[in-house]
Amino acid sequence: MSEKQDNSVLVAGSIAYDCIETPLAKEDYILGGASCYAALACSYFAPVKMAGIAGNDFKASDMERLKARGIDVSGVEFDANKPTFFWRGKYHENFKSRETIDVRLNAFEDYSPKLSEEQASCGYVLLGNISPVLQESVLEQMKNPRFVVLDTMDLWISTANDTLRRLIGKVDLLILNDDEAKQLSGCSNLLKAGDALRDMGAKAVIIKKGEHGSMLFCDDGFFTMGTYPVRDLYDPTGAGDSYAGALIGYIASKGDASFETLKRAMLAAAATSSITVESFSCYKLEKSGMEEISRRMDYIRKISSI
Amino acid sequence: MSEKQDNSVLVAGSIAYDCIETPLAKEDYILGGASCYAALACSYFAPVKMAGIAGNDFKASDMERLKARGIDVSGVEFDANKPTFFWRGKYHENFKSRETIDVRLNAFEDYSPKLSEEQASCGYVLLGNISPVLQESVLEQMKNPRFVVLDTMDLWISTANDTLRRLIGKVDLLILNDDEAKQLSGCSNLLKAGDALRDMGAKAVIIKKGEHGSMLFCDDGFFTMGTYPVRDLYDPTGAGDSYAGALIGYIASKGDASFETLKRAMLAAAATSSITVESFSCYKLEKSGMEEISRRMDYIRKISSI
Repeated sequence: MSEKQDNSVLVAGSIAYDCIETPLAKEDYILGGASCYAALACSYFAPVKMAGIAGNDFKASDMERLKARGIDVSGVEFDANKPTFFWRGKYHENFKSRETIDVRLNAFEDYSPKLSEEQASCGYVLLGNISPVLQESVLEQMKNPRFVVLDTMDLWISTANDTLRRLIGKVDLLILNDDEAKQLSGCSNLLKAGDALRDMGAKAVIIKKGEHGSMLFCDDGFFTMGTYPVRDLYDPTGAGDSYAGALIGYIASKGDASFETLKRAMLAAAATSSITVESFSCYKLEKSGMEEISRRMDYIRKISSI
Repeated sequence: MSEKQDNSVLVAGSIAYDCIETPLAKEDYILGGASCYAALACSYFAPVKMAGIAGNDFKASDMERLKARGIDVSGVEFDANKPTFFWRGKYHENFKSRETIDVRLNAFEDYSPKLSEEQASCGYVLLGNISPVLQESVLEQMKNPRFVVLDTMDLWISTANDTLRRLIGKVDLLILNDDEAKQLSGCSNLLKAGDALRDMGAKAVIIKKGEHGSMLFCDDGFFTMGTYPVRDLYDPTGAGDSYAGALIGYIASKGDASFETLKRAMLAAAATSSITVESFSCYKLEKSGMEEISRRMDYIRKISSI
């Protein structure tokens, strides 16, 4: 395994077209999906190889947007007979709640991931938000991953709980948001939820609390941090994926997963995902640069230093 | 004005008996009220003089509990004809919501604060949670206060908005929780709410977010911090009062209100209020010690250091 392969990140997850309505605006058929957001976020920190499946309506121009950030899309699969995964969602009451109006699996319906030799050799893996069965299939094909991050969502906690729980014991870090942590653990107190998820077999857990920051539970201790103050939330879609992507990218860039590295990775993740939510789709994330991410990382540090 | 008078804190607010039901337990006629919680919290940091009115049912033993913490209760007024302010409340759904089942002003009904010479000479003032009309009366009687903190609640934002807004321009620091900040400012984004409250005339604003910590908005900048992780919330009553009391006590103990002092005062406030919520009434707060508060301050720093 070459040095380069070892430090690159495999990002698996959905590739999607989204139709999104927020209290502020509405846009149709915009590039989305866990894999796209996460790969773009990750690309600022480490070499990325994307896994996932696109459909027969996927635009070459959208593939170019990913390539423009240096993402290796050579292993992305295509379904010639079906359109790309589709999600239509609406945010209500100042973004307090999100409603899925329509979801069509399309290309993901019969998807069975087949990783290339190069993909399977990546040292770092993000099992981004897709069904736990697909996440498990990706993980099983990896040759010798050094660090594996698992993301999930409420849907899979309800519908694929057993597979998800099995997976939790096989990865290095579980990331989920506050509602998901409560749902999966059955604990209404987030600190107890973090403890319970570790008891469930997770080596380390990050619970994201949106505007309230995030918390890390691991063998080395407990860590809590705020986030970058976003005054003009535009579209929260992809925030969690961007967080996970930047997180694993930062870890890969350091080549270790010590407590201190995980803390700084959370800083990088918070800074990067704060950019995502300031526009629809990946518009702002893909145009951003390491300079802006670094500035936000420094700013989070500054406003929380005591 | 002697040095001692100058560094002491006048704590004004309600003196109450509470009947509280939580998802965990229920207790009747326990000592409560903004002034009691705040004075006890403040007493760990600076000399405290209490202002407020107790009724004809107020127990001498409860007065002794306040005195035992060195609180100067000589200026507390008494209504010989009416019972003490009474509140009956119930917490629902894992403390997510609070319902007032019964509230009786009793001694507070015709209360018009009359400060003693000693009380009026305090250098630091906490206008704890009572009606803005009473808060304004207290403030007008102060001789030459160096730093004034104003606390409030949803009830006064609804029913005494004009007086409250007038008061905001006369104090040094406004403290309120996230829901109150949104209600008073009309902004659903907490950062915009903080900005709007400053535009309303508040020199500095602290927005408390319960388990998610607190934020400071002032001329010197923005500061955000987490809080002490409470795994076993027992009764949130008095958390805000304890926060405010410890905050002004810390400021008085330092004799300045610089940005750095305010940050550390928030640390002291978070640590102290985390003790309050681990028991009913002031039970744990009054028995605590500076050692435990310091330990919690250090712990908050430790878990958020990066």
